[in-house]
Amino acid sequence: MKLGFVSAILPDLSFEEVVELAVAEGYSCVELMCWPKGKAERRYAGVTHLDVEGFDAAQAAHVNARLQQAGISISGLGYYPNPLAADEVEAQVYRDHLKEVIRAAALLGVPVVNTFIGRDPTKSLADNWPRFCAVWPPLVAFAESQGVRIAIENCPMLFTGDEWPGGKNLAYAPAIWRRMFAEIPSPSFGLNYDPSHLVWQRMDYLKPLREFAPRIFHVHAKDVRVDQERLDEVGILAAPLEYHAPKLPGLGEVNWGRFFSVLGDTGYDGPVCLEVEARAYEGSLARRRAALRQGRQFLSQFFVSE
Amino acid sequence: MKLGFVSAILPDLSFEEVVELAVAEGYSCVELMCWPKGKAERRYAGVTHLDVEGFDAAQAAHVNARLQQAGISISGLGYYPNPLAADEVEAQVYRDHLKEVIRAAALLGVPVVNTFIGRDPTKSLADNWPRFCAVWPPLVAFAESQGVRIAIENCPMLFTGDEWPGGKNLAYAPAIWRRMFAEIPSPSFGLNYDPSHLVWQRMDYLKPLREFAPRIFHVHAKDVRVDQERLDEVGILAAPLEYHAPKLPGLGEVNWGRFFSVLGDTGYDGPVCLEVEARAYEGSLARRRAALRQGRQFLSQFFVSE
Amino acid sequence: MKLGFVSAILPDLSFEEVVELAVAEGYSCVELMCWPKGKAERRYAGVTHLDVEGFDAAQAAHVNARLQQAGISISGLGYYPNPLAADEVEAQVYRDHLKEVIRAAALLGVPVVNTFIGRDPTKSLADNWPRFCAVWPPLVAFAESQGVRIAIENCPMLFTGDEWPGGKNLAYAPAIWRRMFAEIPSPSFGLNYDPSHLVWQRMDYLKPLREFAPRIFHVHAKDVRVDQERLDEVGILAAPLEYHAPKLPGLGEVNWGRFFSVLGDTGYDGPVCLEVEARAYEGSLARRRAALRQGRQFLSQFFVSE
Amino acid sequence: MKLGFVSAILPDLSFEEVVELAVAEGYSCVELMCWPKGKAERRYAGVTHLDVEGFDAAQAAHVNARLQQAGISISGLGYYPNPLAADEVEAQVYRDHLKEVIRAAALLGVPVVNTFIGRDPTKSLADNWPRFCAVWPPLVAFAESQGVRIAIENCPMLFTGDEWPGGKNLAYAPAIWRRMFAEIPSPSFGLNYDPSHLVWQRMDYLKPLREFAPRIFHVHAKDVRVDQERLDEVGILAAPLEYHAPKLPGLGEVNWGRFFSVLGDTGYDGPVCLEVEARAYEGSLARRRAALRQGRQFLSQFFVSE
Amino acid sequence: MKLGFVSAILPDLSFEEVVELAVAEGYSCVELMCWPKGKAERRYAGVTHLDVEGFDAAQAAHVNARLQQAGISISGLGYYPNPLAADEVEAQVYRDHLKEVIRAAALLGVPVVNTFIGRDPTKSLADNWPRFCAVWPPLVAFAESQGVRIAIENCPMLFTGDEWPGGKNLAYAPAIWRRMFAEIPSPSFGLNYDPSHLVWQRMDYLKPLREFAPRIFHVHAKDVRVDQERLDEVGILAAPLEYHAPKLPGLGEVNWGRFFSVLGDTGYDGPVCLEVEARAYEGSLARRRAALRQGRQFLSQFFVSE
Amino acid sequence: MKLGFVSAILPDLSFEEVVELAVAEGYSCVELMCWPKGKAERRYAGVTHLDVEGFDAAQAAHVNARLQQAGISISGLGYYPNPLAADEVEAQVYRDHLKEVIRAAALLGVPVVNTFIGRDPTKSLADNWPRFCAVWPPLVAFAESQGVRIAIENCPMLFTGDEWPGGKNLAYAPAIWRRMFAEIPSPSFGLNYDPSHLVWQRMDYLKPLREFAPRIFHVHAKDVRVDQERLDEVGILAAPLEYHAPKLPGLGEVNWGRFFSVLGDTGYDGPVCLEVEARAYEGSLARRRAALRQGRQFLSQFFVSE
Repeated sequence: MKLGFVSAILPDLSFEEVVELAVAEGYSCVELMCWPKGKAERRYAGVTHLDVEGFDAAQAAHVNARLQQAGISISGLGYYPNPLAADEVEAQVYRDHLKEVIRAAALLGVPVVNTFIGRDPTKSLADNWPRFCAVWPPLVAFAESQGVRIAIENCPMLFTGDEWPGGKNLAYAPAIWRRMFAEIPSPSFGLNYDPSHLVWQRMDYLKPLREFAPRIFHVHAKDVRVDQERLDEVGILAAPLEYHAPKLPGLGEVNWGRFFSVLGDTGYDGPVCLEVEARAYEGSLARRRAALRQGRQFLSQFFVSE
Repeated sequence: MKLGFVSAILPDLSFEEVVELAVAEGYSCVELMCWPKGKAERRYAGVTHLDVEGFDAAQAAHVNARLQQAGISISGLGYYPNPLAADEVEAQVYRDHLKEVIRAAALLGVPVVNTFIGRDPTKSLADNWPRFCAVWPPLVAFAESQGVRIAIENCPMLFTGDEWPGGKNLAYAPAIWRRMFAEIPSPSFGLNYDPSHLVWQRMDYLKPLREFAPRIFHVHAKDVRVDQERLDEVGILAAPLEYHAPKLPGLGEVNWGRFFSVLGDTGYDGPVCLEVEARAYEGSLARRRAALRQGRQFLSQFFVSE
Repeated sequence: MKLGFVSAILPDLSFEEVVELAVAEGYSCVELMCWPKGKAERRYAGVTHLDVEGFDAAQAAHVNARLQQAGISISGLGYYPNPLAADEVEAQVYRDHLKEVIRAAALLGVPVVNTFIGRDPTKSLADNWPRFCAVWPPLVAFAESQGVRIAIENCPMLFTGDEWPGGKNLAYAPAIWRRMFAEIPSPSFGLNYDPSHLVWQRMDYLKPLREFAPRIFHVHAKDVRVDQERLDEVGILAAPLEYHAPKLPGLGEVNWGRFFSVLGDTGYDGPVCLEVEARAYEGSLARRRAALRQGRQFLSQFFVSE
Repeated sequence: MKLGFVSAILPDLSFEEVVELAVAEGYSCVELMCWPKGKAERRYAGVTHLDVEGFDAAQAAHVNARLQQAGISISGLGYYPNPLAADEVEAQVYRDHLKEVIRAAALLGVPVVNTFIGRDPTKSLADNWPRFCAVWPPLVAFAESQGVRIAIENCPMLFTGDEWPGGKNLAYAPAIWRRMFAEIPSPSFGLNYDPSHLVWQRMDYLKPLREFAPRIFHVHAKDVRVDQERLDEVGILAAPLEYHAPKLPGLGEVNWGRFFSVLGDTGYDGPVCLEVEARAYEGSLARRRAALRQGRQFLSQFFVSE
Repeated sequence: MKLGFVSAILPDLSFEEVVELAVAEGYSCVELMCWPKGKAERRYAGVTHLDVEGFDAAQAAHVNARLQQAGISISGLGYYPNPLAADEVEAQVYRDHLKEVIRAAALLGVPVVNTFIGRDPTKSLADNWPRFCAVWPPLVAFAESQGVRIAIENCPMLFTGDEWPGGKNLAYAPAIWRRMFAEIPSPSFGLNYDPSHLVWQRMDYLKPLREFAPRIFHVHAKDVRVDQERLDEVGILAAPLEYHAPKLPGLGEVNWGRFFSVLGDTGYDGPVCLEVEARAYEGSLARRRAALRQGRQFLSQFFVSE
Repeated sequence: MKLGFVSAILPDLSFEEVVELAVAEGYSCVELMCWPKGKAERRYAGVTHLDVEGFDAAQAAHVNARLQQAGISISGLGYYPNPLAADEVEAQVYRDHLKEVIRAAALLGVPVVNTFIGRDPTKSLADNWPRFCAVWPPLVAFAESQGVRIAIENCPMLFTGDEWPGGKNLAYAPAIWRRMFAEIPSPSFGLNYDPSHLVWQRMDYLKPLREFAPRIFHVHAKDVRVDQERLDEVGILAAPLEYHAPKLPGLGEVNWGRFFSVLGDTGYDGPVCLEVEARAYEGSLARRRAALRQGRQFLSQFFVSE
């Protein structure tokens, strides 16, 4: 496995600075954010470390040269919009940009693009399904044609009331993954596995590592802490952030020893990217850099980056 | 405390037969179902053991005479519609009938009417709140004027997809109860406390016994079993019945020793009514009667009916 | 479900006395021991409450008349030898008698005969398998032809050093049951399910209830207590009785509420027979009778015999 | 084992009424309180169901005749003062009366007298020890000469601030029992074992059952509930009743199934007396009688009185 | 947060050597011991790394220059006597020296002085309270006037029999802290929070982090291991060191991931000082230095010193 | 304690390369494998980093010079055959070579030789015992005469079916160790303690640290993960590797904080050697080197090598 981080935590740094910081903090790879340039729509989104619009082979060569020199690789390109947004015009914009990201990945030789399935949050899973079946096969086919794999992060994108009730990403549970992969069996379609989302959904985050082993293309190392005292007040029907908080690995409820023990058994040897979404580390670049240092320190007791 | 049962499990029996069965099975009281005569709208609803339409003092005297003779009391009248149904005409029908139930309770000298707050399940808690504030104060005032207390069961009424996403009863969590009682501080407004609903919402079902002690007017003894194997598949965002099942006390996750230990400390000495909603006991009257026998056997190790 | 007990605990009583005691203690059924008359070969074996040798229709009618009068039924006939004993002559004796028991069951209209697969304890599972495949298909075919079902108790028959290392019954784990039923798919071949044997083998005793639901023909209610202090001394490679002890339900580690909760979900409505093998209750008939009374008291909080 | 209760809960009943109630509620034996007539000094003390002053053979014969007729036995005589009270005059009064109780037990043929060692609560264990060594050997010798055994209840007698810091009974921990029995090895000196006192002291209440098996002469069935929320506020250095409460068996933290499972293994077949000290049951004779009924119902699932 | 250590573990080093060692071992700050020169009264006490007697501005400038050069800060000055000692003369000596320490902190610009409330261990909490109310308001007022904050360590100072029964520091539980801060609401009066003392008192060490967040001025990172086998022998009424032992973080029962997770949420960004009191590390300077290295290694996975 | 590793993981490296790697990865010592040159008989065996045949003082001086220069010590010589193999000729070969290893240790001044007792796996413990009593006293006496201590690893050597049923090493449980040391009380006879073998045997791995403290000569740091899902299928009577897997420390079930906490209390200050037997790390030298790096990173939070 290779230790990396998700570049979304560094919106104020340029590509070059991200690479420098990765080297300085001892990381082997980075998941580069590829949002379109412009205003972010939510926290940790809207970050552009690689501007894929008009991205060409020359730029790709330049980027790769810099990375090779630094000894850093790109674990995946990241772009996490809602490709099934209720507003079809908006959804199309997302899907078009997603194809640009895929194209850029192909040019760079980056094997994976990380994203979401999306969802109309006002509709049930069943009512969203036909749209998934219409929208996603061509997207996956496009990625396959480019030699790039799509890794869907297993996040419900349901945190606060404005994403209520259904969240903005269908792909949050094994029962759903199974249907997804039955619908689109392409080997280019898989998961960006983040155990933390399963924790607050009260699910086993180890079992799927085995069943979905061939579908796990990328891993996010993030943790969550469930606050029982808050949960006792509001219950699981409340907006999830009312009773839990994202945390750096080691400060939450994931048993990382067990996680890497099972992940190693599956033969996974891809990237493991620290994702920093903990508010306690957001204040300054120094704080966020401290988060990267601490995360590496914590994770390196369970696996050594190669 | 007095041991009773909820009569909804016996839709095929008359009032008289319910009383006979209560005596035969050693119960001290019964929560009598008071749905309007006619077709039930969901399982365990639509049962009419007391027809409150046109119910008068003479009928009340007759009922009470029969009960006194049998040595059985009515723990409360039960009617569980959705008084905040999205369709205002429908909601008004429910509220009108609820007032009839309250009136009947007053005639009978029954201290408590058990019901739901209701909810428009397609709207958020916040968006339902103004309607609660408009609808419920007069209902509670009416009950108060009749010398009857309203006990709201703490059930989210969210079991399957058709109640998605919000369920049909707002009153499912301590944080909400606190707001309810702040809005309507009347001493005639309280809870019909059922610990099982808190279990699958992953909440402490003991703490509220202390804080809300003066508001607990009635208790339902029901249990639930959460099936982790199912939960691992679908997560807490699924329809709740996809991963849990109602059960008789002792066949679920409530620690009843602890429950009655704390409930006793609060000084509660009202009714505790077994609520049978377990599918394994639905097949026949004999099965349901077996459920009542088993439930009494189980509960009587934790309290003795007086 | 019907509450019964295994008659092996009453070697000093006659059939008639067993029936009387069952009535007196409030049981609905009995698993009758059918060892050949003569000397017992181990504790709780060698008991003959029904002598199947030469058993004929007239005797069957007599037995059934007595049972009907008493309101007691036979849950199954029980005979637990080692039909795969290393000594083929000995094994053949067991198998011949087993067929007699099956024949008697058919005459009585008793649906189930409870027994063991057997095993040569000095050989591995793999090395015993060919013999299982040779011996058991004709036995099951015979039972099927008689309209009787064979229920194999899931006991390893490995308690002390003299059964070391392999025990005297192959059928102790789900992985093995699956092979057994693949080899002999007859619907007359199933399990006499005793959760206690799975406890000290450190296995989930609830999961198999679902997977093997159609194969569960009979249930034994027995418990075990694992003594961690002893286990800390000798480990799981020791003879099992060095670190655990059979117990009455409620005095061991089985969560019976959970057990009957899941068992009820599977639709099982057959017999549940208390099996008394606890040394603390062996001293006298009074003690063993006390065990039957206590066991009924304990179990009846979880299910009511019909 | 024989199921009994401690008569201290019935201060308002006479000996005769206690016996009648024992019969009516299905108990086999009673621990009779033998405080001197007069004013009680603390809750549940000062109760006199047998007035031992001037008690003679004729009275003993009368009492035994009544008991035999009722089918009830005396499990032990109970008198729980502080024989090591700081005030030596007071202590001597206690010790003199204790000898009277022993004498009465001898006359009645009751095998056990239950009491406390006592303690000067203002002094450390070490500083109390010399007095124990001076006072108790002659008391035990006297009991031995009368053919009566002394059973010391393992209660620290430290509940509220007025017993601070050391409590009024030295004999609360296995390390201390071992010293006691080393100092006074008489087979007439043992324990009245109550598991509940070990629970709030955070001790294993099962291990001592084995080690001290030959010293366990009498058993109290009482439970306690530790309230972690309170403990979080005050810690274990607070007065114990600030964070725990005595409870009926089944309403506290003792695992009674495990308790009777191990107790049975030790061969114990003496009395098990329900001790009711739960405030929720104190209000009236009816409440206390309900406690006796409930306790019997609960305990009889784990052992049957012989 | 800043990682430091408590200098008491290095009694044989001078101020200069302590600073050198802090630099060499990668620490950012140090809590400097300020006992009066002379004989220590107990383990880890009596250490003088800063002699506050006669300490003046020039000395302060010298110290600060050295620290600035080394890149090390003083997290707080530490002096832990018994300011409520029974002997009023002795207590006055402690309080006078405490004022000297406060004065030195002001001269150095060190924001916090760490100490104890003290207690007459032979008296109850209630009986100590009037003296607390008389003694502490002027001490806090003095600190406030000097611009220095007083941080009380939450240690009961009750370890062995000679501190029995009450220990030498009142400030050991949230219920007491609340009274303290109600009595002395000054913002200069707070806590030096050490989670380990709450562990063996069986208290939640996370909840107070939230409630008392504005009062937490300093944090000690120490752990304890509770030995259940010992506790089973002696119970919680024994001297605490009979059943627990202080340990380095990671070798005890504190869940440090959870601790720093919650501490970070409160916004705490002050010092976290490793306190080494583990006997296994006392043998030599090399051992104690190893403890500092190991502690830093362990803690740095949960936070990165800034 | 000193941090080392077991050299068996590096069969493709020479002694010189092992030493270089130890230095490069920051280890203080190495347990050197001393199998006879030739074909390995099982995984991780048959490795020869020190060829003891014909080993003489000159070679010893050479080895020691190299080690001294590198700052690395030998924690022990390792040779793990089956000295009680059923084939006496084979067993004698093992024992002769073991004596060669002991002789080499003496020449090198290495204090410990690590090995197994051995066992005829087809015979019970009891039936193996006489042979142990015959074979081992002279071996221990020889070691004692050479000033070398024998440390027996507590591994049952029972992993797969070919070692069934008894495994190839008697010394796997405290009850057996006690008998061993009673039989051979020589202070040169002790344990190479590996907690992981106790985990899957479901035994306490902390208690023996205290009781056998004077017998613990060497420690292996290895972990195991028990897979409950597999165990649910096959039970503890299956071949152990069917339900568990060896793992690096931190990726299994040993609580290493607790382990080193108790080990430190016993005063142990010998070697702690990482043993890498995890399949996930076997693929290449780079992987195995990564394992050594990761293991050191993990262990160094619990102790610092001196």
